[in-house]
Parts: sequence; structure tokens; C-alpha cells
Amino acid sequence: MAVTRCEIRRGAYFDSIVLMQLQRSLASLAGVVDAGVVMGTPANLDLLAASGLTPDDLGQIGPDDLVIVVRAETEAAARDALGQVNPLLTRRRATTDETYRPRSLATAVKSLPDAQWVLISVPGRYAADVARQALALGRHVFLYSDNVALEDEVALKQAARTAGRLVMGPDCGTAIVNGVGLGFANRVRRGAIGLVGASGTGLQAVTAHIHTLGSGVSHALGTGGRDLKSEVGAVTAHQALNLLARDPDTQVIVLVSKPPAPDVASRLLQAAQAAGKPVVVHFLGYPPPARRLGNLHFALNLSDAAALAVERLMTDDSRLIFPTDNHQSSVINHYVRGLFSGGTLAYEALLGLQTTLYPLYSNAPIRPDQRLPDVWHSQAHTILDLGEDEFTVGRLHPMLDNDLRLRRLRQEAADPEVGLILLDVVLGEGAHPDPAADLAPAIAKAKAARDLEVVAIVVGTDADPQDVGRQVEALTQAGVTVFRTTTDAVDYISQRLAAPAIESYFSPVPLAVLHHPLAAVNVGLESFYNSLVAQGAAALHVEWRPPAGGNEKLAALLKRLKTKDR
Amino acid sequence: MAVTRCEIRRGAYFDSIVLMQLQRSLASLAGVVDAGVVMGTPANLDLLAASGLTPDDLGQIGPDDLVIVVRAETEAAARDALGQVNPLLTRRRATTDETYRPRSLATAVKSLPDAQWVLISVPGRYAADVARQALALGRHVFLYSDNVALEDEVALKQAARTAGRLVMGPDCGTAIVNGVGLGFANRVRRGAIGLVGASGTGLQAVTAHIHTLGSGVSHALGTGGRDLKSEVGAVTAHQALNLLARDPDTQVIVLVSKPPAPDVASRLLQAAQAAGKPVVVHFLGYPPPARRLGNLHFALNLSDAAALAVERLMTDDSRLIFPTDNHQSSVINHYVRGLFSGGTLAYEALLGLQTTLYPLYSNAPIRPDQRLPDVWHSQAHTILDLGEDEFTVGRLHPMLDNDLRLRRLRQEAADPEVGLILLDVVLGEGAHPDPAADLAPAIAKAKAARDLEVVAIVVGTDADPQDVGRQVEALTQAGVTVFRTTTDAVDYISQRLAAPAIESYFSPVPLAVLHHPLAAVNVGLESFYNSLVAQGAAALHVEWRPPAGGNEKLAALLKRLKTKDR
Repeated sequence: MAVTRCEIRRGAYFDSIVLMQLQRSLASLAGVVDAGVVMGTPANLDLLAASGLTPDDLGQIGPDDLVIVVRAETEAAARDALGQVNPLLTRRRATTDETYRPRSLATAVKSLPDAQWVLISVPGRYAADVARQALALGRHVFLYSDNVALEDEVALKQAARTAGRLVMGPDCGTAIVNGVGLGFANRVRRGAIGLVGASGTGLQAVTAHIHTLGSGVSHALGTGGRDLKSEVGAVTAHQALNLLARDPDTQVIVLVSKPPAPDVASRLLQAAQAAGKPVVVHFLGYPPPARRLGNLHFALNLSDAAALAVERLMTDDSRLIFPTDNHQSSVINHYVRGLFSGGTLAYEALLGLQTTLYPLYSNAPIRPDQRLPDVWHSQAHTILDLGEDEFTVGRLHPMLDNDLRLRRLRQEAADPEVGLILLDVVLGEGAHPDPAADLAPAIAKAKAARDLEVVAIVVGTDADPQDVGRQVEALTQAGVTVFRTTTDAVDYISQRLAAPAIESYFSPVPLAVLHHPLAAVNVGLESFYNSLVAQGAAALHVEWRPPAGGNEKLAALLKRLKTKDR
Repeated sequence: MAVTRCEIRRGAYFDSIVLMQLQRSLASLAGVVDAGVVMGTPANLDLLAASGLTPDDLGQIGPDDLVIVVRAETEAAARDALGQVNPLLTRRRATTDETYRPRSLATAVKSLPDAQWVLISVPGRYAADVARQALALGRHVFLYSDNVALEDEVALKQAARTAGRLVMGPDCGTAIVNGVGLGFANRVRRGAIGLVGASGTGLQAVTAHIHTLGSGVSHALGTGGRDLKSEVGAVTAHQALNLLARDPDTQVIVLVSKPPAPDVASRLLQAAQAAGKPVVVHFLGYPPPARRLGNLHFALNLSDAAALAVERLMTDDSRLIFPTDNHQSSVINHYVRGLFSGGTLAYEALLGLQTTLYPLYSNAPIRPDQRLPDVWHSQAHTILDLGEDEFTVGRLHPMLDNDLRLRRLRQEAADPEVGLILLDVVLGEGAHPDPAADLAPAIAKAKAARDLEVVAIVVGTDADPQDVGRQVEALTQAGVTVFRTTTDAVDYISQRLAAPAIESYFSPVPLAVLHHPLAAVNVGLESFYNSLVAQGAAALHVEWRPPAGGNEKLAALLKRLKTKDR
């Protein structure tokens, strides 16, 4: 029967790669069945247990403790294996080559002054401090480390925004800057598609697929998976989008993100509308409102995002800006009010408009934060479904009786904050015999009183009893812009309300970051340094050790002493 | 200054159309500024107030009371107008034509025995009782009325399912059966596209757009907007889908719904997979996982759903069933376990598989109900993101170190409920130099021990340092089915697990309902009766009055007496 023996080294820090190699070496020794070498976090101890490698000494094991467990065929084999730990660790050190390795970030940056970038992959609890140092030294940061606190991310990105520097990450798995891959990155052709991604493997899958389709990548800028959360506010994504909008080598932009916060997503897409280039959008788990709204192209999945970008690159894209008319100036910054008789049309309008309009309210909201507090009074952008039960008790449905809608139309038109009113007109059997006869005069009157745009979606066929041509004609005569599908109407409205200036509250990141030959200092996983060198980039690896050799208590004490000194 | 006067008639029931006509007549009288005629529900009183028509007598007004408010230029004009109420109501009655009008549903059905359908549009609080009567008489029900209790809907549909009858609704706005529109319906060309819709205007918009695109509709079956909620369980949608699957005139099916309950949606899509025809799916607000998964085609919006259906109709669709192989039988009814190193790839797999797999769990769930209780143990279908923070504290990311993944692979392979294991293999700079060398032997060993299918998604390019061709070759040699995108892998897995028998727990609805010339009895809005007649359908209108003349207290008393009698 197999025996399990373990050894615990208190407060000993080792690189994860060293741990992996030690584990493999131990497991391959004669008589050893399995081995585990991990830092003593609760998750790692669970994992050891799941593999039948429960440490025999279940005393106090903390996350700073190195746990070495060996299961062997005999007691002797287990003891022999544990006896090999020190020689194996020593042998590993001896095989490391003799390249110059500075012991601090500051020294490294002095030795390689061209390094615009610092790559950080030390354990999460040390990573924010290293990133702060890098920013203080005026460098951009590629922060691979995960398990970094959200507050640290927010603070780092605020500082970076002010300084015109990028902080990609934390938990940023990948980037391609000026042809050089950082962290994990597929080798892809250079080309004219630039990417921004709050999703590591998402960005990898899209860049790899672009390559497979025969096209290429200008730059792929990772942001870390939490960048589009409310707390962070997409600081890095806005900076990266702005960079790619200014980058002459980028003709099409792809924006990929893990599920974003809705308000953050709307603001980022507003900025994307003003990028002056086609932007392919894929927000995971978000229903795309259409295949295209203006210069925004919505993808269904990662491979589709790649395909759309390549297709855009090959398409003459002159219809980027919707033809303006004399109403243009009056609509910008005014609110949209939708008065729908059809619930599904209201939903579809809401789904489309929420892409770029915020805040947006409704009595039939898609998200709870869109719930209109008082259905009798609109606020900001509002889409109303007048066929909801609350409006139809004891009265006819608005597809039969326009009274409620006409009253609300007058109410909205009287609100000086309203710039555009959106209506649906649903024809067919059973519906009102001549809705335009009710609506057109009321609309004409409202438009005569003030500058107001009215858009209508007419659902009907040339066989319908109301004569769809006559309905459209009457509405058009009253000054209504008429569409036949919600999607076309949403597309039009998105254009009319679009084109805010690109977010300018941050110091723009100098374009040089994309165009100078990449040089970087690496702190953490040696494999990332090796990868930079293999790609021909100038790089230096810092022989990093955690403060106080990884002893948390001692490190905390040192930090407190330092703070007192000031 | 204008004066406002009102009159309240206690417990008086009037048809909504009568109320609308009375209001219009009053508003058009000389000296009258505005008029309101409504049943005294809180919502209607709010609406009157918003129009400046607050009743002067603010005594007890209930939902059974008819409220008539007139705002006029003078006191005399107001009083004159209120004096016109009785003559106007009388005149209206006189203009009604002299066609035979039975006073009860039972009599109507005797007079028109061919009527398979009863159309019900009486006020919500009476509607369920009328629908129960119709079902008891063996008829299908088109239930336009809204404000019907959810419990009533559930009970009605359970009864209908057992009897092989359809209950479309409540709040069903539209249907087209054998060329005749019920409720609101656009006049559209006959054709080969059949529709099922839990969305009234959604169904109208799609049928109208199909017509505009030059194609046509076989039948469009509404279900009511709540049919895909958990409580109802899509009873009507399953029945309707089954009907259209059997209907020889329908070649392509379109399925449209307001946001469905996830479990109900999965089961309905499972049934759709077995329909033997292409099914175009548009669930509002649901992110489509791909453009196509097997015979399911996912639309982005209503007009897109119409376009996809027309396109399907014109396409030779021989690839409906994925080529089977000798593994086919072993995978059905066995669970899928996904072991991902890439978070976004895991997300994309989850998004795609949740379309038809239920229940499905993950440590990185899309919906809260998918949260895996214990990340160390999978259950049912499970997709794991092994790069999540909980797995990576103090150890290398699974893109660098396969140890965690190999241990989990052995664990999943040992679980007899598991039929298919899904992996991602992400190549490129910085990643593991030869992942297949770790994975392939472990997979081959697991497959040798038992019948198990393994599917891999390989993300990489022909320029990557790992040699993507060699990686794919090694995996294929080990018996792995390899794809290059998540979407292709999900498509494959969906096919492998598909094809359950169509839900057969209900009595099938006889196909005659679609093929006999439509005949119907109408209870409620007269305009729906007029529309049936205009379309050439056989129809009878019931001169319906609520029990006890609309006096709720009296009606309740009568009902209690009746119950006692039994």
C-alpha cells in the first residue's frame, strides 16, 4: 500500500515555474506514485486532497508556506524523494544562464532606458506595488498577474490615465504591440486590423482567426477582464480605442469584452461611434441589436468577429457618416421618447437604442435599472409600451384607439428636453382602419409649434386594408421620417444622436507606444522574458524576490516602519 | 375659464368600443374642450388627471364604475354635454345591424357547429370563464383579452394539452390560420413559412416582412406573451411547433418569443432540433450563440428572422442531420464536461451549449442558476474555467501547466455519467511549448479504458512556435475530434446530443385545425367579428354581457350560490 509523506517550509517563496518543475522531478523518481508541490492556499490544499495527496501533518498551513507532498510505494521511497528536494532546487538554480539580471525594477529601467513597457507576472499580492513603481518610472504596464484587488486596479488606472500611460490588466493574458506578443500571444501576420480586448483568450482567438482568414493585425491591446466593470469604467479600453482611432496603420477596430457593465458599455460604444473607422463589437453574452448600426458592426461570436473585421477591411466603407440634414443640430443632446403600441417593437427599439443611449427608461424595461419610476412621466430617454396591461384596463388597445397615444404625444412634445419622438404604426386586419388620419394632424401640429423630429416604424403589407402607401404618404406629409423595420429606425436614430467628441478627459497616450520598436523589462515569469527575446525584442529580466523573502508578517512590519519614517 | 363636470354610473358595464365612441362624440359637441369616458380603474383615473380631466366628485370610484368627465367652455355647455350621454348611447344601439346574434356561447356553437375556434376579447376578469366554456365545448381558443391571471392561463393550457386543443393567449394579439387572420393580422401571401410566436407585434412584423420580401406564410400561431415563462412551460408553443412540424405545407419554421425562461427555452429548442425542418429562432434579448447550430438558425432581430426564413426556404438544406458515426449512441443522455484554460472560450462554449443543454453548471456561470456549488466536483453538464482566480493562486496558469487539467481529466473520465469531454488548447508565444505532449497520452489512456468522446478547440496559427499542425495531429492520433473555433465545436456537440423525440406528453392537436376552412365564434370586440367576415370566414358574434350586468358584488354572490347548489 502506498504511503504519503509531506514537508512544509514556512514562509518560503518560490516562483510558480520552480514549483512545477520540482513537482515533476519528484513525481518521476523511482518508487514515487504522485507528488504535489504548492503554496499552502486553501484552494491548493483542496486540490491536493482531491488527488489523494492530503498532507499527513495537518498543522497550521498558511498561504506563505510551501507544501511538498509525496505518495510513494514504500516508506523508504517517500523519504528518499523528500531528501531530493534540496538537491533538485539547487540543480535548477545552476542551470540558469549567466545573462545580466538586475535585482530591482529601477536598476533595470536605467540599464534599458528604451523600455517603454514593464511586464509584471509576480504573485497577485505583490503585483500592484510593482505596477506602481513602473508607472512612477514613466512606463506602460502589462500586468499579467491575477488575484489583484479591484481597488488597486482602479487606483493604478486612474494614475495611468492622468499620466498618459497604459495599464493593461491585471489578469491581462495577451497583447500584440508593434508586432511583438506580450504574455500569451499567437504569431499573426501584420495587417490593418487593430483590437482592444477585455478578454485574453477572446483576443487570442480573434487574432488567430484573422490570420487564418489571410488577413493581419496592427496591434492587439489587452485591458484585463475587469476593465469594463463599473468600478473601473473602461479606462484602458477608452485609451486603447483612442490610440487605435489615431493610429494610421489601423483601418478597422475590433472591440471584444467579457460581459460589460451596461453604462460602461454604452459610453464606450459612444466613443466607438466617433472613432471614424468601422468598429466590430463583440461583448460576450450581450444580444447584438443588429448586424450593423452606423460604423458599429455587431458580431455573434469570436470567429464571427474576426470574419466581420476582415470583411470590413475589404469593403469600401463610404457610408460611415449618415447624411446630415437641417435637423441635425437640434437632435443632438435632446432626448428620445418612444410611444409604442406593439410590445415587441418597443422591446426591439429599447434593445437597439440602449447600445448607445444612457440613461434609458421604460415601463417594459430589459434591465431593472431601466424601470421608469412613474409611467405617466417620461425621463431622459424613454421608450413606452402603451399596450402594457397598466394602460389597457377598461380601454381599447392602442392599436385600435389612438386617444392615449395622442395625449402622450402632446405631453412629450411640450417637454423642451425632447428632441425626437418615435412611434410605431401597425396595420392589418383588426387594427385601426386609418391610424395616420389620427396621428398625422397631431404630429404636424406638434412640429409646427417647435423644432421636433418624429420617426415612425410602419408595419404592414401592400395587401393590408389600410393601404400602406397612403399611410406612409400621410405621415411623410406631416414631416415624419418613416421606416419599415425597427432596426432601420434605430440605425437612423443612432446616427442622428451620434458623434460626440472622443472621450477627452484623459491625457492621450503618445502614439509612439505603438510605433517605436518594442523594448520591455520583465518582472516575474521567466518564460515571458524568453518569449520577448525569441521575438527579437530588447528585454531585461529582473531577478525579483518578494519583500522580506515572502514572509508576509515581516513584510508588513517593514512596510509599517517605512510609512513611519515619512 | 373652462369648467369640468363629471358623471359616475355605478356598476355599469360597456364595451370599450362604446366608451371610445361616446368619448369622441362628447368631445366633438359645441363648447366642449375635452372629454374622458373610462371605467374607474386607478390607471384610468391617473390618465384623466394627466389630461386635466379630474372628476369633480372624488367620492368612492371603483373599477366597475363608468366615469364620464367633460371639460367645457361654460357651465351650460358642460351640463348640455352630460345631458347627451343617454341619447348618444341609445343612438349607437340603434345603428347596430340586424344580423342574428346569439346571447350565449353554447347557443352560438350549436348554430355554427363548424366553428373550431372561439375568439375571446371580453375584459380580462371575465375572459378565463369564457375560455373554460369554449374548451368544454371542444373548441380551440384565441384569447385576445389581457389582464388574465397567470394561474388561469396555466389551468386553461393544462386542460387544452390533455384535450388536444390550442389555447392561444391570453394577451394573444395575432394569428393567421389557414389564410385567415385572427385578432390583429397583416394580410400576407400564402407560402411555406410557418410561425410560432409568443409576441404579438413580433409575429406581425415578421409575417409582414416575409411578405415584403416576396415570400409567404403557411400559418402563424400566437401563444400569448407569457407562454415561455416557467409557470406555463411553453405548452402552446410545443403544441404549435409540433403542428407545424407535421404540417406538409410548412417547410421552414420561425420561432419568436419575448424573453423566455432559460429552462423552458432549452427544452423548446430541443424539440425544435427534432422538428426535421429548419427552424429560425429569435428570442428577444437573448444573445444568439451562432448564426447556425444544426437545423437551428439564430436571428438578430425581427426583420432578420424574416430574411433568414426566406433564405432557408430558397436553400437546399441537405446538411440537416450531422453525419453520424459509431460513437453516436454512447453520447446521447451522457453529460458533457468542459475543461478550459481560456475564460472567454469557456464562456462562449457555455453560451452555445446552454441553448439546448439543461441543466448546465459552471464555476464562471452566465446565469446565477448555473453556479456550480462545489468547483472540485462537476455535476450534470459542467463547463469549467480552470484559469479562474480560485484555481490559480500560487500555481501557474493552465495555459502554462497542464497538471490541474490532467488531474481533472482523470476525475471526469472516471465518472460513468460523462460521455464527452471538451478541452481548449491555446497555442502561441508565452504558452506551453507542447501541450499535446501532455494531453494526448492522458486522453488516449482515458479513451482506452472506456467509451468516451473527447473534443478539442485548438486556437493557434501556422506561425505559432508549437506547430499547430503537429498539435492537431497528436490530438487526432489520440482519438480527439479537433475544431478551430468554439462555434464549430458547439455545433458538433449540439448535433451529437440532439434528436430527442418531440415532446409527446400531450395529445397532439389534430392537423385539421390548420387545414379545414376557418370558422369561428367571436365573444367580445365586434371589430374582430367584422374582420373575420371581411376575410370570408364563417363567423358568429355573441351578444355577450358580463354576469350580473357587470356588477362584481352581485356576480360574486351569484357564483357563491351556484357553488352551494352543487
